Amino acid sequence: MVRWDDLSPAELTVLETIFWSAGVSRAELAQLTDFSRSKANAAVAALIERGMLDETGPQVSSGGRRPETLLLSRNLGVLAAIDLGATSLDVALMTPDLTVLAHHSEPADVGSGPGVILSRVREVLRELRARCNIRREEIFAIGMGAPGPVEFGSALLVAPPIMPGWEGFSIREYLREEYAAPAYIDNDVNVMAMGELWRTHRQVPNFIVVKIGTGIGCGIVCNGMIYRGADGSAGDVGHICVDPNGQRCHCGNQGCVEVMAAGPAIARMGTEAAQAGQSQMLADVLADKGVITPEEVGQASRSGDNAANAIIKLAGTLIGQMLASAVNFFNPSQVFICGGISRIGPLFLAAIRQSVYHRSLALSTRHLEIQYAPLGERAGIIGAGALALHETLRNRGRLP
Amino acid sequence: MVRWDDLSPAELTVLETIFWSAGVSRAELAQLTDFSRSKANAAVAALIERGMLDETGPQVSSGGRRPETLLLSRNLGVLAAIDLGATSLDVALMTPDLTVLAHHSEPADVGSGPGVILSRVREVLRELRARCNIRREEIFAIGMGAPGPVEFGSALLVAPPIMPGWEGFSIREYLREEYAAPAYIDNDVNVMAMGELWRTHRQVPNFIVVKIGTGIGCGIVCNGMIYRGADGSAGDVGHICVDPNGQRCHCGNQGCVEVMAAGPAIARMGTEAAQAGQSQMLADVLADKGVITPEEVGQASRSGDNAANAIIKLAGTLIGQMLASAVNFFNPSQVFICGGISRIGPLFLAAIRQSVYHRSLALSTRHLEIQYAPLGERAGIIGAGALALHETLRNRGRLP
Repeated sequence: MVRWDDLSPAELTVLETIFWSAGVSRAELAQLTDFSRSKANAAVAALIERGMLDETGPQVSSGGRRPETLLLSRNLGVLAAIDLGATSLDVALMTPDLTVLAHHSEPADVGSGPGVILSRVREVLRELRARCNIRREEIFAIGMGAPGPVEFGSALLVAPPIMPGWEGFSIREYLREEYAAPAYIDNDVNVMAMGELWRTHRQVPNFIVVKIGTGIGCGIVCNGMIYRGADGSAGDVGHICVDPNGQRCHCGNQGCVEVMAAGPAIARMGTEAAQAGQSQMLADVLADKGVITPEEVGQASRSGDNAANAIIKLAGTLIGQMLASAVNFFNPSQVFICGGISRIGPLFLAAIRQSVYHRSLALSTRHLEIQYAPLGERAGIIGAGALALHETLRNRGRLP
Repeated sequence: MVRWDDLSPAELTVLETIFWSAGVSRAELAQLTDFSRSKANAAVAALIERGMLDETGPQVSSGGRRPETLLLSRNLGVLAAIDLGATSLDVALMTPDLTVLAHHSEPADVGSGPGVILSRVREVLRELRARCNIRREEIFAIGMGAPGPVEFGSALLVAPPIMPGWEGFSIREYLREEYAAPAYIDNDVNVMAMGELWRTHRQVPNFIVVKIGTGIGCGIVCNGMIYRGADGSAGDVGHICVDPNGQRCHCGNQGCVEVMAAGPAIARMGTEAAQAGQSQMLADVLADKGVITPEEVGQASRSGDNAANAIIKLAGTLIGQMLASAVNFFNPSQVFICGGISRIGPLFLAAIRQSVYHRSLALSTRHLEIQYAPLGERAGIIGAGALALHETLRNRGRLP
């Protein structure tokens, strides 16, 4: 097995730099690390000797001798990435440069508790390993995202609203029964932010990722790192007030953006529009199925239904109003939108954008971009892999 | 003169650690830097040899041989700290450990432009130097806070609302005519946050400083560093909306916290209460002086005037509502309140606190403290000194 604990600081810096840049030439490496060429080359030589780095095919070059690309070696082992959603389960095996070797996705109800869900995760991991012929000893780091608040140091869920049976349950110990590798667990939107951070090669140092589904949460990247706050609850934006006289939320306050604009609010407004005779289309859905989902409001909107359009615009406007507070406070360069509700229709993103630009200071939005998270549904699994490798390097392979 | 450019990374770390901890023993230094005792001692010996560190009087010890305290040496030179307010000017000379050698404060109208204000700053600096018998060559770093948005890299003010004549004016070049030392300029509340960061020995890594005066702004400390955002406008919280149907602000939007709750709003509400016959006390002030200031509303409140109490509670509640958004998003461990309006009366801080605790998530406020900035009026000048030394070390004395 690979030994991490006797890496020199320079070697560690080289490994981290190569991981975050997803492959570099020696010249680029010296530049990125701010090392002299000879210092960078010495560290690279030592790491190749140890089997931790590989030199692979030539990069595209503008001429002259073609530079080789340095990549983390597959000798390091295999990463296990787990993305737990409210209603789904994704598991993947990856190389150290986050190339997916095998991936499995299936529906799952996170509310059924850690026993059911994690034994299924374990089975899927075994199936994927068998498919790729990977022994369990080869798994050298595990990363996981979960749809609830996670105390990152202990990896325990703290009062998770949709995962009541998970509170106090040690996912880490459970996984350790089969895998000796260190396991890192974070909430789903921080993990997605980690994925986008890796995708951008850490070159976008200050951005936020906003997930809109049944709830609303946000992952914060500050100076190139995930920012978790003093108690790990940074990014809990679902209960920011957007209307002091608005609807009452389960948290006890009035007008939280989550109760006014997330998935259930869109469904509720759709039902009200159907009952009030404002939309024949939604009334037909209600008569037919007995309930209206946010997706059906989205469909009606795409078909040009006025009431559905108004609902989606209102939800987007309220979310944009909350985001304007975050933008004024944090001045990110990017806001990435994701989550089950985010693609409910083009009006939604347009309304979010309009509302943020309208309500934020000009200086804060001068270079601001608001767009769908480029990794899309892959952000969670890529982020879980990135979390696993980043933390393993940072802690030099020590068990957390 | 001191040479910074050939310091080894270990020596630089030692200097930074001693600066931020405001004096340590050798044993503490090794612990704080995570260096071996011998590595720390070697760096200390080299720095003493170079005249950059001093060993001074014994620290209080629990017994045995008394440890010496390591401090940045006065041989490094003298810091010049400048704190420009909307209506005041503070200038100080300090030792490298931020001991004030001389300090001068006087009223000044920042709106009279850089020519008037900076020539007065230059005069005051000369007077203070003469008083302490310090040659201009001994000034080795300059730090300054200004009451407007500053682009930190270029040190230029960007569209400063109350400093129109300053836009594009190079304060740095102006100071360079007399001083060869590097000069660092930031907005006033970032500088105050720097002061509090130094006061807490960087042991409180995530906090915010909120300044409430004519406007409302906030300084953000994230992972032990001032966070300025993608465009330098992080902390511009004055235009966060607290009431979508509220009063129109000069920025064009409705219900910005600044137009609803800062100093001018308190004065306006006081005038309205006087005119509506809701307060005899305020009506008397209005009849007597023709205008009502926020301070007079505060005085009326302290005398038990009901209308003044209601005004101050409302302003505190609205500011607390804005801060609740910041707390939910950022999860700081401390919120420090400062600025000309902040001490308008005990009801004000109480209302801010109540509003933040009421509107934030329980997890975010579990350990949250909201209090007056402990450095009080000294935060600006101490922060300017800390900024000067921190940036000079970080840039190894190179001119910015």
